Amino acid sequence: MQNYYAGSPLNRLSYLRSVPSFLASALESPKAKFIALDSLQPLCKDDKDGVRRLHYLKWKDVKDLVGPDPKHVFHGVDGKNEADVPDMAVLGKPQQMQFRKAKVGELSTAEKREYFLNQPALVFLGVDERSAPESAKSLPVSKPDENSTLETHSPHGDPFWAIDVTTFKHLKKRIMLDHGGAKFMELRSGAQTMPNEEASIAAEARSLIDWNTRNRFCPACARPIRSVWAGWKRSCIPGEPASDGAEAEPACISRKGVHNFAYPRTDPVVIMAVLSPDRERILLGRQRTWPARFYSCLAGFIESGESLEEAVRREVYEEAGIVIGEVGYHSSQPWPFPSSLMFGCWGVAESATADGDVRVDLDNELEDARFFTREQVLEVINSTKPMQLSREQVARLDGKEGAGASEGVEEAKEKAKSEGSFLMPPATAIANTLVTAWATGKLFNQHPSGVSSSPAAPAAHKM
Amino acid sequence: MQNYYAGSPLNRLSYLRSVPSFLASALESPKAKFIALDSLQPLCKDDKDGVRRLHYLKWKDVKDLVGPDPKHVFHGVDGKNEADVPDMAVLGKPQQMQFRKAKVGELSTAEKREYFLNQPALVFLGVDERSAPESAKSLPVSKPDENSTLETHSPHGDPFWAIDVTTFKHLKKRIMLDHGGAKFMELRSGAQTMPNEEASIAAEARSLIDWNTRNRFCPACARPIRSVWAGWKRSCIPGEPASDGAEAEPACISRKGVHNFAYPRTDPVVIMAVLSPDRERILLGRQRTWPARFYSCLAGFIESGESLEEAVRREVYEEAGIVIGEVGYHSSQPWPFPSSLMFGCWGVAESATADGDVRVDLDNELEDARFFTREQVLEVINSTKPMQLSREQVARLDGKEGAGASEGVEEAKEKAKSEGSFLMPPATAIANTLVTAWATGKLFNQHPSGVSSSPAAPAAHKM
Repeated sequence: MQNYYAGSPLNRLSYLRSVPSFLASALESPKAKFIALDSLQPLCKDDKDGVRRLHYLKWKDVKDLVGPDPKHVFHGVDGKNEADVPDMAVLGKPQQMQFRKAKVGELSTAEKREYFLNQPALVFLGVDERSAPESAKSLPVSKPDENSTLETHSPHGDPFWAIDVTTFKHLKKRIMLDHGGAKFMELRSGAQTMPNEEASIAAEARSLIDWNTRNRFCPACARPIRSVWAGWKRSCIPGEPASDGAEAEPACISRKGVHNFAYPRTDPVVIMAVLSPDRERILLGRQRTWPARFYSCLAGFIESGESLEEAVRREVYEEAGIVIGEVGYHSSQPWPFPSSLMFGCWGVAESATADGDVRVDLDNELEDARFFTREQVLEVINSTKPMQLSREQVARLDGKEGAGASEGVEEAKEKAKSEGSFLMPPATAIANTLVTAWATGKLFNQHPSGVSSSPAAPAAHKM
Repeated sequence: MQNYYAGSPLNRLSYLRSVPSFLASALESPKAKFIALDSLQPLCKDDKDGVRRLHYLKWKDVKDLVGPDPKHVFHGVDGKNEADVPDMAVLGKPQQMQFRKAKVGELSTAEKREYFLNQPALVFLGVDERSAPESAKSLPVSKPDENSTLETHSPHGDPFWAIDVTTFKHLKKRIMLDHGGAKFMELRSGAQTMPNEEASIAAEARSLIDWNTRNRFCPACARPIRSVWAGWKRSCIPGEPASDGAEAEPACISRKGVHNFAYPRTDPVVIMAVLSPDRERILLGRQRTWPARFYSCLAGFIESGESLEEAVRREVYEEAGIVIGEVGYHSSQPWPFPSSLMFGCWGVAESATADGDVRVDLDNELEDARFFTREQVLEVINSTKPMQLSREQVARLDGKEGAGASEGVEEAKEKAKSEGSFLMPPATAIANTLVTAWATGKLFNQHPSGVSSSPAAPAAHKM
């Protein structure tokens, strides 16, 4: 089962993220495609059928931002030594930074700080190799070294990049002039019409740019951090003082060993179809800030020191007061707001499934939760038009609006009760996948025989 | 299937982490149990049979560190307002900090910084309610408010806490004097003999103390952060300058909206039994730093913007050059080094399963990977004594020793080849679970009927 935001066609080639020669050739390639993001909104363009597509920029559109010579952009990508920090003239040159000095070493502490904190975030996403002729679909013939290039490792690949342009007004103005009709669009509200493949690329871009731009200082030593490994690692800078008043601070603990905070964060979440003991009814709940009559599956972050199955049981117990027995896994979905991975599960209640037994006053996450019959759910699935949420409604789903958005909820609850009718998340959300799979008898038995060799989902990087 | 480090008996009561009255009563309760950690090593004691057990401290053992009055320890647990920062006299009073001032507001910027950075990490882990009589096993009668206590919400629960004592030499000395035979022990090397239930509690404690102690500064603004929500949230302090030279810096972005970096990090990992197309052989690999003849399942971190299944395919492709078709989920395991969650999967190779087809020179993570027959694997499973790794061997498995540890590997490889014999991870690792499940015909069909109501694993918080 492949959910929306999954199914990317890109081969990430993660082992080449630390190879400067490869990255440089992938940057200046005429085949390179750049996704520009402004406040995490990717540059898009709606086609004549109203379908939202990513609008890719070329190297010439962004090279002023990155620096004229791609060979130097990724010099010292491992970030371990101070000597790795290249001359400032060639790494990132945002318009507003004109220190008029040639080398990083000549900057004052305050200038250095400003310089590193204003580097534009640039992330290598992978290559699209689908245009390769069948005869060329083989693994690279040599292992990566200092001479590796796009030509040696992915001769038929189109390199994909993400770049944050938020603070570069001049560049944004020029993009708008040069690319008529293109606009920076909220990924989530546009998701309903964007083809899955592009949405999955946009998901990777959004999560990585978010991580690079929100994490500016080392959590262990407070020094500014710089991007290494083409956006897939962030590392504090040795020799750079944590603050003006602390020149003599000891080396950061992150300079020794492996530290998870140096790598992009992915937050695992459980989301579950909770079923009555006879599996004929499903539990759905709603938060008070959600749009009226909107119900969805229960969900929550997996915590340290618990298994997937234990997280399902804890969340259902805390949110609805219901004890779960058997738990199974169905499918997963990357959710780039900002960087979650949803594990779609099912769980069977052991007791307490009359409406009066459901308790939402333990953690007070939900304002209502109750069991729906298969008939009620099928009615909604079959009648609902594809739901296009407004920006305001998306904000409510994200809980950004606070309690003020709950007006009309009581009324809507009464309405939903009497009509037996409600709203569900759109098909692009895994909650919809789970509810629909249950209602149509396809929730269990993902691998019925255990001997079938047909893939459950398309392989990502078939050669 | 329940793996080691899962199966905790604790009810985490996560919705009470922000309720000061509850936390205070759970802190000073005579039933409270404290796990002290020194450099992430929990205090343990081996019993007369050589079984390693957690050695719990009481409130009286640690109250000097936390502050004499538990009612004030969690004052202002939401950390949103400067007014929430309590008088320093009552929140944390490590021996080495004697500013001789009564209120935080009277401290200089440098003193404030030192004060907040030296708070001892204290984490509420949950309550053990298994001693409750059957008649008392019901949900709390009231929702939490400012009068909630241990008595109102878990009258039969024993509260569990974790506390970091690393920097408090005086306290450690006293603990050693008062608790003869107790020692701070490496969780991983001791894991082989520690009962599963205690190991699962220790896992939660280790991950949370690690997160609290390694994350000292806000990654968005570089200000010192303080612990809120009883160790489950870390939040920068408004009004506290980022550095001495930056008094006028704007408010941190983390003061608005929800930011994942304020919450404990859990890193999802895929680990997989990779099978030949006929499912009769299994792919195992070894890193060059591992102990000689040691082979295990392939594994890697799940990245942003990919599903569980896609991560399995990418990792196997990058580490061994093999294309995977069908993928299934088996079970999961919390892995508290420092805070991973292992998703145990299986995947079936679509081609390239002769030894010559396996490629380890793409990402160079492995020095060798090859397929083993069921017979070879069963021989190892049936012959291996429970493996007790030395501290040095554990360090090698963690890759801390670098390439220097690979001496003898070539020789061992030849030996393994000729003998068909090798070493596997111990039963406490999910890699062993997966390999054993495959070899004994139990890898597939976790939920064969889809209608059984017997739990796949014990429910965590049965009432």
